[in-house]
Amino acid sequence: MSKNIFFKKKNIKINKIYPKLKFKKNFLINDIKSLDKAKRNDITFFDSFNYVLLAQKTQGSICITTEKLKDHLPKNIEKVVVKNVLFELAKVAKIIYPNSEIDYPDLSLQNPIKKKFKNVKFGNNVLIGKNVKLGKNTIIGSNTIIESNVIIESDCIIGSNVILKNTILGKGVVIQDNCKIGLKGFGFIPLEKKNIKFPHIGKVIIDENSEIGSGCTIDRGSIDDTVIGKNTYLDNQVHIAHNVKIGNNCMIAGQVGFAGSSIIGNNVSIGGQAGISGHLKIGNNVKIGGGSGVVNNIEDNKTVMGYPAESIKTFLKKNKS
Amino acid sequence: MSKNIFFKKKNIKINKIYPKLKFKKNFLINDIKSLDKAKRNDITFFDSFNYVLLAQKTQGSICITTEKLKDHLPKNIEKVVVKNVLFELAKVAKIIYPNSEIDYPDLSLQNPIKKKFKNVKFGNNVLIGKNVKLGKNTIIGSNTIIESNVIIESDCIIGSNVILKNTILGKGVVIQDNCKIGLKGFGFIPLEKKNIKFPHIGKVIIDENSEIGSGCTIDRGSIDDTVIGKNTYLDNQVHIAHNVKIGNNCMIAGQVGFAGSSIIGNNVSIGGQAGISGHLKIGNNVKIGGGSGVVNNIEDNKTVMGYPAESIKTFLKKNKS
Amino acid sequence: MSKNIFFKKKNIKINKIYPKLKFKKNFLINDIKSLDKAKRNDITFFDSFNYVLLAQKTQGSICITTEKLKDHLPKNIEKVVVKNVLFELAKVAKIIYPNSEIDYPDLSLQNPIKKKFKNVKFGNNVLIGKNVKLGKNTIIGSNTIIESNVIIESDCIIGSNVILKNTILGKGVVIQDNCKIGLKGFGFIPLEKKNIKFPHIGKVIIDENSEIGSGCTIDRGSIDDTVIGKNTYLDNQVHIAHNVKIGNNCMIAGQVGFAGSSIIGNNVSIGGQAGISGHLKIGNNVKIGGGSGVVNNIEDNKTVMGYPAESIKTFLKKNKS
Repeated sequence: MSKNIFFKKKNIKINKIYPKLKFKKNFLINDIKSLDKAKRNDITFFDSFNYVLLAQKTQGSICITTEKLKDHLPKNIEKVVVKNVLFELAKVAKIIYPNSEIDYPDLSLQNPIKKKFKNVKFGNNVLIGKNVKLGKNTIIGSNTIIESNVIIESDCIIGSNVILKNTILGKGVVIQDNCKIGLKGFGFIPLEKKNIKFPHIGKVIIDENSEIGSGCTIDRGSIDDTVIGKNTYLDNQVHIAHNVKIGNNCMIAGQVGFAGSSIIGNNVSIGGQAGISGHLKIGNNVKIGGGSGVVNNIEDNKTVMGYPAESIKTFLKKNKS
Repeated sequence: MSKNIFFKKKNIKINKIYPKLKFKKNFLINDIKSLDKAKRNDITFFDSFNYVLLAQKTQGSICITTEKLKDHLPKNIEKVVVKNVLFELAKVAKIIYPNSEIDYPDLSLQNPIKKKFKNVKFGNNVLIGKNVKLGKNTIIGSNTIIESNVIIESDCIIGSNVILKNTILGKGVVIQDNCKIGLKGFGFIPLEKKNIKFPHIGKVIIDENSEIGSGCTIDRGSIDDTVIGKNTYLDNQVHIAHNVKIGNNCMIAGQVGFAGSSIIGNNVSIGGQAGISGHLKIGNNVKIGGGSGVVNNIEDNKTVMGYPAESIKTFLKKNKS
Repeated sequence: MSKNIFFKKKNIKINKIYPKLKFKKNFLINDIKSLDKAKRNDITFFDSFNYVLLAQKTQGSICITTEKLKDHLPKNIEKVVVKNVLFELAKVAKIIYPNSEIDYPDLSLQNPIKKKFKNVKFGNNVLIGKNVKLGKNTIIGSNTIIESNVIIESDCIIGSNVILKNTILGKGVVIQDNCKIGLKGFGFIPLEKKNIKFPHIGKVIIDENSEIGSGCTIDRGSIDDTVIGKNTYLDNQVHIAHNVKIGNNCMIAGQVGFAGSSIIGNNVSIGGQAGISGHLKIGNNVKIGGGSGVVNNIEDNKTVMGYPAESIKTFLKKNKS
């Protein structure tokens, strides 16, 4: 389940990208990975001191970084020192993953060949891309589009008008009508007053028995994946941005929004229309009141409310009528 | 207009569900109803002291309740005393309404037979389920899905990409593109850290001349119905959860959200992105400012704003610049 | 690019609408325009003292206005003096633009004739109306509907499940899956407790290289157009109401909502779930924090946050923890 599942160019030689680095000419680039996931032959990137512990241990072969940060990396990794790490990363990602900076529609779609998917039930006008895997007893509603390389395990119920791309669904997942999952997120680099599109090469992974309400949008990860745990329920019109990771057994009410890269624990419940800012860590068993705006990390077992969100006690005291 | 319109098992004998109750073996269960709507042969439920007045007068034959509450029920009603009323109710509802705890796609859809719907105009690729009723002069846009048993009165305009299920539309209702109406709501019972799906067996009823903006989601009722009155207008991307009842001649601006079971009066106007918590009573002629978070009941003729919402005067005084 | 592109009745004689005005019988009405855009043969309207400077210079032939305002108009313009300007305007608009007060589905859609659109790539089941223009190298995803008279320039990427009507897209625009653009906005006139539908006869214009995230709704203008500038990016589930004008190079995060008729400058960034009230002027280079509720104009270069939004410094001071 860990491979990138949409189009990646294979056998790219390092000297096509960085001819001046000290590698053999036929050294092949495998992939782009975050510091903790990069292995030999991978390109990684290090652009903030927040990740210094991961940087010290990264196993990638090449790292894009800055003059200030480069000395925190292992000695044996090749360093590409630039001013704007994300801009450089975008350039490389576009070479390895062409077409990943825009959601080009999948033009290989066809109605499902019933012989191929014997134990799957289809509504009308379902469209399926290449290399799609559908587990047994899965049901797929009318007008739904499953783009190439999507993997759906057994016993899933997919509604009508759904679009899935760059997505892996575990066993027994329910997706209600009109969800759009695996799309490119809101990633760009503001550069000299022009917005550069950042390629998003991650996936969406939804673990078993989770349920996604109608009209939700869940964007794929930029470099890592966007992940939703087991037995987690989303209500309608929830928006989950790229790289967000939500734990098991969470309850997310209607119209909640998550900015990118936040990590949410297990057994978390979030009331309607709450917003969670980017790059936060929300602990286990946290309860967030409806309409809250969460802008700071929250420890395990806390209950918060307000904009900005604070302890529920403080909120109620301030707002006594 | 009051019958449940999606699949219900008929002729279920009481001894299949509660063999120990004092009924004749061939006593048939008719339906599950709330305390005020239950009649002879219906199962009802009583799980909160808030409903004690309704409980005293209920006409159902069987009531699921708790040890603490059971003595408030009429003497002649059969009591099923349990610890978790909703859990028991879910169990029974799944027997009487199989498949109501998940939105299984309707696999009986077909392109409309034009002979059958003589005075209705259809766009391309419209899909219609079994036993659908379409009133004269109604127009239905392309790629729209009308699932089985839906009733649409005359002179309705239904946009494209709409999905309707378990829904009744009055005369002259306008539904803009991409609305999803009648879906299962966000109902579950948190039980020992596992979320049990609660069957939703109600409908959505939208009364005459109302207009629903693009991309709205209106979930069907759990036991009762979700109801929108006459001449009420919803802007785009509004979310209405199960059991909400909205009166006549209301104006609901974009991205407003309603949590479950609130009751909204007539002539109410609600500004964009406001949120209405669950189980509230909002009076007639109330005005709610945009972005407000309403967490308490509001009396007739009040104007409120803020999070939590308060009198507009208080809000403006606090926020003078 | 300035013509109204959906159905307008031609050759309407003034005496069909206003027989008592001092025009020749065969004087033809050209269009309905705002004060600043009206030319000879156009009907315009003047309903608020805010627009007095535009009123003094308007070049229209006929102006609907009130007793109080009429003396601010040029002497040679014919005045139609009424109590409710918008009600009168709606009546006239319905004559010149029949069917503009409801989004009637386009019943002329067909699968694209490939000969006609040689350098355009189509997914499956695309539906195209009459008189649609598609620029070269444009790609259109599956199940997408392009209604009559839409203009799409070259190099656009349109996702799947998109609906476009009354819309003009500049070169290189990207529209992600499930956007609904050019629909009738939330316009009505509350009159004696009955909501009168206001015809919306404007367009949506999205300028080159802008990108619209999944599930956005952008409503067409009422009399003027709704406009999005160049190189502006919208995240998912954004709602833009009628007549809003957004500048170039803006960044609008997920679930942001704009009420009608606000004007947003260039290089503006808006955080997730923020709401912008109607009829505001937001300057250039403004930054608006996530979750903010903007109810006042904002000058150039300001950073604001809060509900109601205020200077970021004030907000942070108030909310110190």
